[in-house]
Amino acid sequence: MMNKQILSDYVYGIIGSLAEYGVTDVVISPGSRSTPLAYGFASSKEFNVFRQVDERSAAFLALGMAKTKAKPVALLCTSGTAAANYFPAIVEAYYARVPLIILTADRPHELRDVGAPQAINQPDLYGHHVKWSVDLPIPDEYEATLPHIERHIARATTVSMASPKGPVHLNIPFREPLLIDFQDELPKPTFHQSFTAKLVPSNDALQFWKEAIQQARKGFVVMGELAEGTDLNEVWSFIRTLKWPVLVESLSQLRTQVPNDCKHYVIEHYDSILKNDVFKKNMHPDTVIRFGAQPVSKPLTLFLKVVKPRTFITVDEDSLFRDPLGVTTTHIQAEIGSWMSDFNVDEMNYDAEYQQIFTRANEIACQHVKAYIAKEHDEGALAGMLFEYLPNESDLVVSSSMPIRDVDTFFYQTARDIRIFANRGANGIDGVVSTAIGAQLGTMRDTYLLIGDLAFLHDANGLLASRYQDTQLTIIVMNNDGGGIFSYLAQSSVEAHYEQLFGTPTGLGFEELARMYDAQYEHVHTKEEFKSVLQQPKEKNLRIIEVQTNREENVVTHRKLWAGMNEELNQLWQV
Amino acid sequence: MMNKQILSDYVYGIIGSLAEYGVTDVVISPGSRSTPLAYGFASSKEFNVFRQVDERSAAFLALGMAKTKAKPVALLCTSGTAAANYFPAIVEAYYARVPLIILTADRPHELRDVGAPQAINQPDLYGHHVKWSVDLPIPDEYEATLPHIERHIARATTVSMASPKGPVHLNIPFREPLLIDFQDELPKPTFHQSFTAKLVPSNDALQFWKEAIQQARKGFVVMGELAEGTDLNEVWSFIRTLKWPVLVESLSQLRTQVPNDCKHYVIEHYDSILKNDVFKKNMHPDTVIRFGAQPVSKPLTLFLKVVKPRTFITVDEDSLFRDPLGVTTTHIQAEIGSWMSDFNVDEMNYDAEYQQIFTRANEIACQHVKAYIAKEHDEGALAGMLFEYLPNESDLVVSSSMPIRDVDTFFYQTARDIRIFANRGANGIDGVVSTAIGAQLGTMRDTYLLIGDLAFLHDANGLLASRYQDTQLTIIVMNNDGGGIFSYLAQSSVEAHYEQLFGTPTGLGFEELARMYDAQYEHVHTKEEFKSVLQQPKEKNLRIIEVQTNREENVVTHRKLWAGMNEELNQLWQV
Repeated sequence: MMNKQILSDYVYGIIGSLAEYGVTDVVISPGSRSTPLAYGFASSKEFNVFRQVDERSAAFLALGMAKTKAKPVALLCTSGTAAANYFPAIVEAYYARVPLIILTADRPHELRDVGAPQAINQPDLYGHHVKWSVDLPIPDEYEATLPHIERHIARATTVSMASPKGPVHLNIPFREPLLIDFQDELPKPTFHQSFTAKLVPSNDALQFWKEAIQQARKGFVVMGELAEGTDLNEVWSFIRTLKWPVLVESLSQLRTQVPNDCKHYVIEHYDSILKNDVFKKNMHPDTVIRFGAQPVSKPLTLFLKVVKPRTFITVDEDSLFRDPLGVTTTHIQAEIGSWMSDFNVDEMNYDAEYQQIFTRANEIACQHVKAYIAKEHDEGALAGMLFEYLPNESDLVVSSSMPIRDVDTFFYQTARDIRIFANRGANGIDGVVSTAIGAQLGTMRDTYLLIGDLAFLHDANGLLASRYQDTQLTIIVMNNDGGGIFSYLAQSSVEAHYEQLFGTPTGLGFEELARMYDAQYEHVHTKEEFKSVLQQPKEKNLRIIEVQTNREENVVTHRKLWAGMNEELNQLWQV
Repeated sequence: MMNKQILSDYVYGIIGSLAEYGVTDVVISPGSRSTPLAYGFASSKEFNVFRQVDERSAAFLALGMAKTKAKPVALLCTSGTAAANYFPAIVEAYYARVPLIILTADRPHELRDVGAPQAINQPDLYGHHVKWSVDLPIPDEYEATLPHIERHIARATTVSMASPKGPVHLNIPFREPLLIDFQDELPKPTFHQSFTAKLVPSNDALQFWKEAIQQARKGFVVMGELAEGTDLNEVWSFIRTLKWPVLVESLSQLRTQVPNDCKHYVIEHYDSILKNDVFKKNMHPDTVIRFGAQPVSKPLTLFLKVVKPRTFITVDEDSLFRDPLGVTTTHIQAEIGSWMSDFNVDEMNYDAEYQQIFTRANEIACQHVKAYIAKEHDEGALAGMLFEYLPNESDLVVSSSMPIRDVDTFFYQTARDIRIFANRGANGIDGVVSTAIGAQLGTMRDTYLLIGDLAFLHDANGLLASRYQDTQLTIIVMNNDGGGIFSYLAQSSVEAHYEQLFGTPTGLGFEELARMYDAQYEHVHTKEEFKSVLQQPKEKNLRIIEVQTNREENVVTHRKLWAGMNEELNQLWQV
């Protein structure tokens, strides 16, 4: 049957090209219209096929995997709302700059806009939230079709990996019949390779860079979440040469595996330190350099907004640079690289005392944080304790909302190899379980997830992945029965309707869910129980540790941390 | 504080206008940026506030409610991926023509495209899948702002309700602080009311209509899912006057509450009858009239495609008329109305025998269907038995995939008042639990849901709604452990990878999930057990009846039904 041959060649042309251009993983959700590609992927030994029936979770799973692998992961679903379910993860991938190749099977042209079932308007379905979207031609025997498809797959992988990385969308129409002939070998495409550019600063930018650093008297560096795949050695060289305080968000991966000779420059407790009024008054910088996304810390945000440093350099791969505070004075479009260390150390005018006070303040804060973790029982202290128990060569995925803030406050620098991931592109609490499962499948390392009860419920379907592939994950759910973060916001000052609209308690526990998914389950009510459970080994693929906490208590105890710390920080200027 | 006053007036201006233009229900998901509107809705006695923490489920809940109420329901969420989670339900609402008012809170302009948290590109977020999308101005004291907002809310409700109905999107930016002063009374807008047009055929169309009906010798009517809120009395009058066979899909609501004098014209077993080759050969129509969407039945589809009736009239409210089979010869843009009965009965040339054979065939099919329900044990027979047990004045929500097909085949006409709902805009298996909960909240009637295991898992989060409001629902899950529909498709002929890609069994049961949500739970393995359980009363708000079935068996027994029926149908021409 000629038709079947044409379809098979088309499908293996796509898959062969994806393989040629470096894609090795695909997450498939079941459906009919996507049958040709599904069979194609499953029959190709070059691909790892992952499965998840809920497309929303499937897309977050691909996201978690692409994040940790720093290379594109493919997604495949059938036509209709299946494709719409990908949307939240695509939006996140777009802002978090994670490469995804989204393959949506579609009805052919004669079944579009005619009221056919499962036919929606799929071309450009994701609007502004993909780097590129294209509607591929229907499989046919025209001689230019296959070479065209090959090159479009090359474009898709190239665009997704070009800095800043991101998702691309290929909409692929298929006519019935949908069956293909299996092929043992993937075809070799005639288009071979695409070399994406490295983004380095222009000469003018380098000149400015040198002068700004050499002229700075008081300055610091802010390191937010960096592009996946960043060479951290370049960053450490830069820190070593610069000798400025470097405020590192946990997601920068610079709080862990800290080299011995960089310890003093790594300021991980800026969130605590910058709550201190005396510190803030005395430590105005003239120069700030930010790499990566703006960190979550509110004290840092407020400080920078008040100070408005004379020179604020944002280094960002995107020409549409990130500057949410509106304080950037200069943008340098570039990737992390050796150019960062290209300034003259002998010509620097930097005030060493400014750096030393930062280091000293950080040491004070660190002692208080450690003491707090040892003494207190709120979610922050528990998160800190979890951090202390994380084994070397493990990863932690952190949910948005309170967990990422607790991690930012309570995780201190360490030489251990621990990587921390979170969805901070759009900061949603959706898809977090799937992201963690994807991260683990991407690294195959020991992986932990720290998450609140609402976020856990939001993506409880993420656990479905464990029914389809070996999934190793330890989930720590802080169950404070509702939306804890709102207790820290102005909304909580209004008594009427607060619990209804923001607290939103569900009264749910997770024991049944754990049993449903055959997960190891532990329910702890005290810090001691939590500690004891953390010391016990994981016995099943999935492990759920439900930690009972209290929304109101968290607010009260969190505030205690800074009271004690402030007194000592104030003394830094009383000598 | 002036700012707070401006914000409060703006928020109550929106809410007062929504109330004035007929919106009474809002589904809210917790979040910060939406605080002003959330507090506004919660403090207004004019609004029923429903809650659901998972925005995907929230939107389907609103959809179910709007479907049964045939009036717009509002949705409110915070900025970021929360809004993206609405997408699947919005796509469904767009194609199913269900009015929704989507309110997405957004960051103000200075926080857009600057890398701010939870800031995505929300204007036009839903692309082609809303009837209208607008980015409202930031609240300010400019005198034209409030009147402008009022009129835009009037436009939004009008557009959503104008035929064909559908979703509209208002993106609403808010600056901090987000707290409002509660107001006891909603303001009365200065814009009063908007009268949407009724869509009636032009004179030319009416002339054509009369002639087509009067000239037809052999013809039938196809009734798919009609617009919500359709006056069925007009339809029954038309059927009574026309006296043609009327092929009614279950979603047309014409299989139930069938008036005595219309019984003979209602052909609900067309799916079975049109499997018969002799029938199809002898019963070519010259004229077919279709109202509503194209029914799900594959035999009907194939018959119409082969026959290609000389005259095929599609009556559709949309100028972009639905004609998935490509057989329509004439489109009349109109709503259901009294114009339909405007033809001359005395001048008709209709072949009464053609109608009588349809009626006779339908009676034969009905006997076989009833016998099959009594005798067999597959999912179809079980669905039929469920139908027989459905009490008067109850509703059934049916999932896409196999359940809607089983309902189409096994539900026979009845005088009972039972309404049947399904998401057939895009035919997804997503959001079905939430749609059912929304339907029940919309009607407050006894409501049942018939669903497969994968669809149930897909929207297990729909059950979260039961933690926030009184939710009365009986869920019948046909658990055949995976994707049953694929067993009927060509994919199942390929042995390699079939279970991996299409069967996708999860091995999950639903007892733990039921316990988690404090639902009454019954697990039945036989038809007898199912029957006995259906006779027992519902004791908790949520009831989950898990019916264990078998994917392979279903295919085999389904085919038995038609074998027996064919023999008798063939005899219709052997007299």
